[in-house]
Amino acid sequence: MKTYLECFPCFLRQALEAARLATDDETIQRMVLNQVMFNLCRMNPRTPPPQIGHFIHKTLKELTYCSDPYKEVKSKYNQLVLRKYSEFKGIIKNSQEPLLTAIKLAIVGNIMDSAAKGYFDLEKTQEKTLKANLTIDHYREFVQSLDKARTILYLGDNAGEIVFDKILIEEIDKRDQGQEVYYVVRGAPIINDVTLNDAQEVSMSEVARVVSNGSDIPGTILNSCSKNFLEIYGKADIIIAKGQGNYESLSDEEDDRIYFLLQVKCPVIARHIGVRVGGAVLKASGGADEKVRK
Amino acid sequence: MKTYLECFPCFLRQALEAARLATDDETIQRMVLNQVMFNLCRMNPRTPPPQIGHFIHKTLKELTYCSDPYKEVKSKYNQLVLRKYSEFKGIIKNSQEPLLTAIKLAIVGNIMDSAAKGYFDLEKTQEKTLKANLTIDHYREFVQSLDKARTILYLGDNAGEIVFDKILIEEIDKRDQGQEVYYVVRGAPIINDVTLNDAQEVSMSEVARVVSNGSDIPGTILNSCSKNFLEIYGKADIIIAKGQGNYESLSDEEDDRIYFLLQVKCPVIARHIGVRVGGAVLKASGGADEKVRK
Repeated sequence: MKTYLECFPCFLRQALEAARLATDDETIQRMVLNQVMFNLCRMNPRTPPPQIGHFIHKTLKELTYCSDPYKEVKSKYNQLVLRKYSEFKGIIKNSQEPLLTAIKLAIVGNIMDSAAKGYFDLEKTQEKTLKANLTIDHYREFVQSLDKARTILYLGDNAGEIVFDKILIEEIDKRDQGQEVYYVVRGAPIINDVTLNDAQEVSMSEVARVVSNGSDIPGTILNSCSKNFLEIYGKADIIIAKGQGNYESLSDEEDDRIYFLLQVKCPVIARHIGVRVGGAVLKASGGADEKVRK
Repeated sequence: MKTYLECFPCFLRQALEAARLATDDETIQRMVLNQVMFNLCRMNPRTPPPQIGHFIHKTLKELTYCSDPYKEVKSKYNQLVLRKYSEFKGIIKNSQEPLLTAIKLAIVGNIMDSAAKGYFDLEKTQEKTLKANLTIDHYREFVQSLDKARTILYLGDNAGEIVFDKILIEEIDKRDQGQEVYYVVRGAPIINDVTLNDAQEVSMSEVARVVSNGSDIPGTILNSCSKNFLEIYGKADIIIAKGQGNYESLSDEEDDRIYFLLQVKCPVIARHIGVRVGGAVLKASGGADEKVRK
């Protein structure tokens, strides 16, 4: 997906939020904004948003000498959701369609995205998402693809959210089809995206083989990923791509193995995907019949 | 007031909204954003927001060849409020304290500000503001200053809102103290700020002498205003400064003739003035006792 003009004010907001986490020095915060604007105005119009996000946070790290501004935020989010682990497991167990409920919860978790907004209401999102149908609902196709798959690639997105991802993988495992699941994290800290550290914090290795994509772009830009990751990517039978960053990176791939799982958090994504802001999306990348509730 | 870092994302949003009104050509809209970012990153940190707003809209006008992107918006806003003129007059007539009610309505009208947000809810703002106390309430001091004044200077802000201003001036006139009232408009189109054209559209000259400040800055930066305006400004006994732009321009003046009348529409102003977003403010510039309801 290309970067739209509405993304530019949002990039500046994001840069400022990150700068304020990285330093209390307003002069340096201002330097970050100035440098970001200076470089943004010369960007190629077709650069996808995660690539621009990467550049912004690279500038930020260089100017603030802070390599991981969201370190505490990420840990806080992980602990927040870990504390509710049993509650979520109970909701799934008591639901009519546990796999679908686990998917909905994984979409709920996608609200914990520091790139999209500085704040979120997890409980409200949970209540709204669980009681409604999916806004884009390719659940039937997803289950069919899952049944046929031997290797599952799960592209993670944000800290906190990763606990919901783990719960969904546990639900997939319960189907007892002996599938191999890879959980993919970013190669280095970028915004509040998951890294190996977060996977460790939530013991993701109990349910999946954790791999880094070797890139610190807040998404999955394939030509920036490591060879090791691309080999695993190549052999996967189904790819679950969580969140807006992965959608922005992979929405132009004509690859019917990909299912996008996300909470629509901004008007640009909403327009691109064809639903409203707040929509809960399970979307097949290939040409599955559109069942969109607008 | 200086420009705060949060203002920068907001300037970009504003530039994009204006560019989209001025042209449908996305390439030109992008050129506007690029040029705005290129210049913003070299701005003096102490430049007040209206001065930056002025520069942004100057860039926009040069690149789009559109001298008044908000022309239709302004006329629409004026007509919208003119249609409700009798309703507002009725509300004032039936209220216990007509002058205070007219002031509250003038503050309600300040929500019609295209610089602050692309959308507003006039009815909701009206309902909320009329039934609550003012958030900063220097009404008593204001009436005392008004009683002593022979010349009243009323610095207008936005189209649509100007009808509420006219209604407030009518209420001041009813006190029958033979005061001379000047209503000030911007010297040329800038955002949806009032110009001579809007004053004509709402027949402002029925109740006040309409004067231009000779500047197309969306506020009142005194050293950019015309000599004629500054003479009138100098001899005024009380100055009613409407809206955020006039507040941003004049908040550092130590001039106890000034009363700020505004709807607080952004977190930067909210923090600067010490109230919440959505607050209704009648604030004496001089050291009146603070009665702030946070």
